[in-house]
Amino acid sequence: MMPAEAKDRPSVAPKNMQAITSGLAGYTDNVLFGDVWLRPELTPRDRSLVTLSALVATGKSAQLAGHLNRGLVNGLKPTEIAGMVTQPAFYTGWPNAVSALNIVEQVFSDRKIDPATWRLTASQSSKLPNQEPRQADEPGIARVSPKFAELSDQVLYKDLWQRPDLAPRDRSLVTIAATAANGDVNELAYQVQRGLANGLKRAEIAEAFIHLAFYAGWPKATAALRLADGIFHQEELASPETDKREDVH
Amino acid sequence: MMPAEAKDRPSVAPKNMQAITSGLAGYTDNVLFGDVWLRPELTPRDRSLVTLSALVATGKSAQLAGHLNRGLVNGLKPTEIAGMVTQPAFYTGWPNAVSALNIVEQVFSDRKIDPATWRLTASQSSKLPNQEPRQADEPGIARVSPKFAELSDQVLYKDLWQRPDLAPRDRSLVTIAATAANGDVNELAYQVQRGLANGLKRAEIAEAFIHLAFYAGWPKATAALRLADGIFHQEELASPETDKREDVH
Amino acid sequence: MMPAEAKDRPSVAPKNMQAITSGLAGYTDNVLFGDVWLRPELTPRDRSLVTLSALVATGKSAQLAGHLNRGLVNGLKPTEIAGMVTQPAFYTGWPNAVSALNIVEQVFSDRKIDPATWRLTASQSSKLPNQEPRQADEPGIARVSPKFAELSDQVLYKDLWQRPDLAPRDRSLVTIAATAANGDVNELAYQVQRGLANGLKRAEIAEAFIHLAFYAGWPKATAALRLADGIFHQEELASPETDKREDVH
Repeated sequence: MMPAEAKDRPSVAPKNMQAITSGLAGYTDNVLFGDVWLRPELTPRDRSLVTLSALVATGKSAQLAGHLNRGLVNGLKPTEIAGMVTQPAFYTGWPNAVSALNIVEQVFSDRKIDPATWRLTASQSSKLPNQEPRQADEPGIARVSPKFAELSDQVLYKDLWQRPDLAPRDRSLVTIAATAANGDVNELAYQVQRGLANGLKRAEIAEAFIHLAFYAGWPKATAALRLADGIFHQEELASPETDKREDVH
Repeated sequence: MMPAEAKDRPSVAPKNMQAITSGLAGYTDNVLFGDVWLRPELTPRDRSLVTLSALVATGKSAQLAGHLNRGLVNGLKPTEIAGMVTQPAFYTGWPNAVSALNIVEQVFSDRKIDPATWRLTASQSSKLPNQEPRQADEPGIARVSPKFAELSDQVLYKDLWQRPDLAPRDRSLVTIAATAANGDVNELAYQVQRGLANGLKRAEIAEAFIHLAFYAGWPKATAALRLADGIFHQEELASPETDKREDVH
Repeated sequence: MMPAEAKDRPSVAPKNMQAITSGLAGYTDNVLFGDVWLRPELTPRDRSLVTLSALVATGKSAQLAGHLNRGLVNGLKPTEIAGMVTQPAFYTGWPNAVSALNIVEQVFSDRKIDPATWRLTASQSSKLPNQEPRQADEPGIARVSPKFAELSDQVLYKDLWQRPDLAPRDRSLVTIAATAANGDVNELAYQVQRGLANGLKRAEIAEAFIHLAFYAGWPKATAALRLADGIFHQEELASPETDKREDVH
């Protein structure tokens, strides 16, 4: 599965990785890009979305330019990249989005992508249909801070989640990647269920966590997969007919 | 609550945010600065303290200069900023403080703030009264590492927490923000109780977590509010007469 | 234990720390470098390994150059540094390793360390004996993602952990530091047990967590020590004869 030798194709690993940590360069070429990125369970475009979301969510600005260019090549639209940057502002904090925007601005400028073209479109777009509000299973939070419950309802669920810059399924993928990368497992449990409701397949969610193992680390991926297994298993018990055509593997 | 159009006042969002992610610029102007920062439950000075602590605690150097200038305008004293940088060294690691100091140095220099003026004062100040040592509810930690228990007692509780550069109430606010932003919920449970003992009001603590939602993300704020609700509820059961004049909302 | 005055030896604290946060400079000189780094429970070389792993694992590039130089002086070999950078790629994500390599490259270049000299050696080295595969106690993860289980087994346990660039005991120390610094406590529980099996002493593991308190914060160290106490205690119950010569204190 993972030959020790470099293959014939040129290495995608940085030069200093090849020179100093040749083993890591081998994993990069043969495992990460030679195996994981090629797996059909998730398209290259979706893998770019997951990767970019994890990078923004964990503040890894240094790797962002390369993956933004890759994502555009893989089919992400500039408006989707704008949506992908906006979402982690709420789920991981403003600073990550503000820092990411400096890199996005440079990449767009280099590629002659003009944000003015889509701002018009966006203002003309109608909002997406109402998202189901978060289940009111947290009376404690509304009790300790009614304002936080109001912001969650009015700004996140009735506005952010209805924005047309990301399809609901993609917005769920971005949010799942961001919360998994940051180890926010309670939030992740909710977002996995929401993602299923928004049209993500179980196999896509599981594959996103494999992919994240390489961008946020094995422990974060392990925790996310453990969680996903529990949720999928509960869902199967509740409605054994669902997902028949889909093999999780 | 959150008009889609920009209001009359000029946007505080960065130019590239306005150009690339106009939605995020709208949230910045209308929700974050047009609503949350203006809420009276926490003063602008305290909001700056919370924001700065979260930025230092999560290593977001890029946003630090702007918020340091804002904090000084909002009434934070240079000595308090020094205390705000020192505290996360212990609660989030030395590297965050070391990196923050490079930005603080630049901002102080730009504003002609001379640290020499307060070093003398600090050396003349007597220490604050003894802080109650951490409750000895962790015999396991003393068992596995008596040295760690000694450092906690001698350096943190009998020295750091008694420094005069931050009032105990402010030191608690800084520590609560740092631990909440990093998702250290076990530590946070202790720090919330300590903060109440140091004079923070319940409503201030809850409001700090709303504020943090925008600087460390919704999941971290949700976890902190869930925790706070449990602690406040326990306190009410234990002493129903407390906090009568204070409405948590 | 921690005199308020600076001692006679010159301060190792940065100039701006001495000027702006003289208290933190005092803790740096008298506690961190004047006490903790000097404790015999862990060698300076091992402390460098723990520090470097924590810095890479938490993406603190700004402090890396100084500690790489210190680590080389403390006896770390360049190949061990290469191994120390490779390991967190898997345990904390590729971006941390990629960013760290830029600093390692510069430090090696400044010190005339030529990676070409050890690449040959590495390719000639035979692999270390098979590491015991991770106990198959996670059927849920194999169920939700057989590929992840395969990657864990084939790439991590049968390849990464058998690389000759780090001795198994050192690889465990690096991994324990990385997972503790990131608060990945479930993974940490497994890695502490693996570290004991790989020859780390209990007192070394506990001391690594004291050391980490200063590089990843008190809450992360507290959680790690709480966990270690539970594991050590269980082990003592299971085999009371073990570790007799070793005092945890």
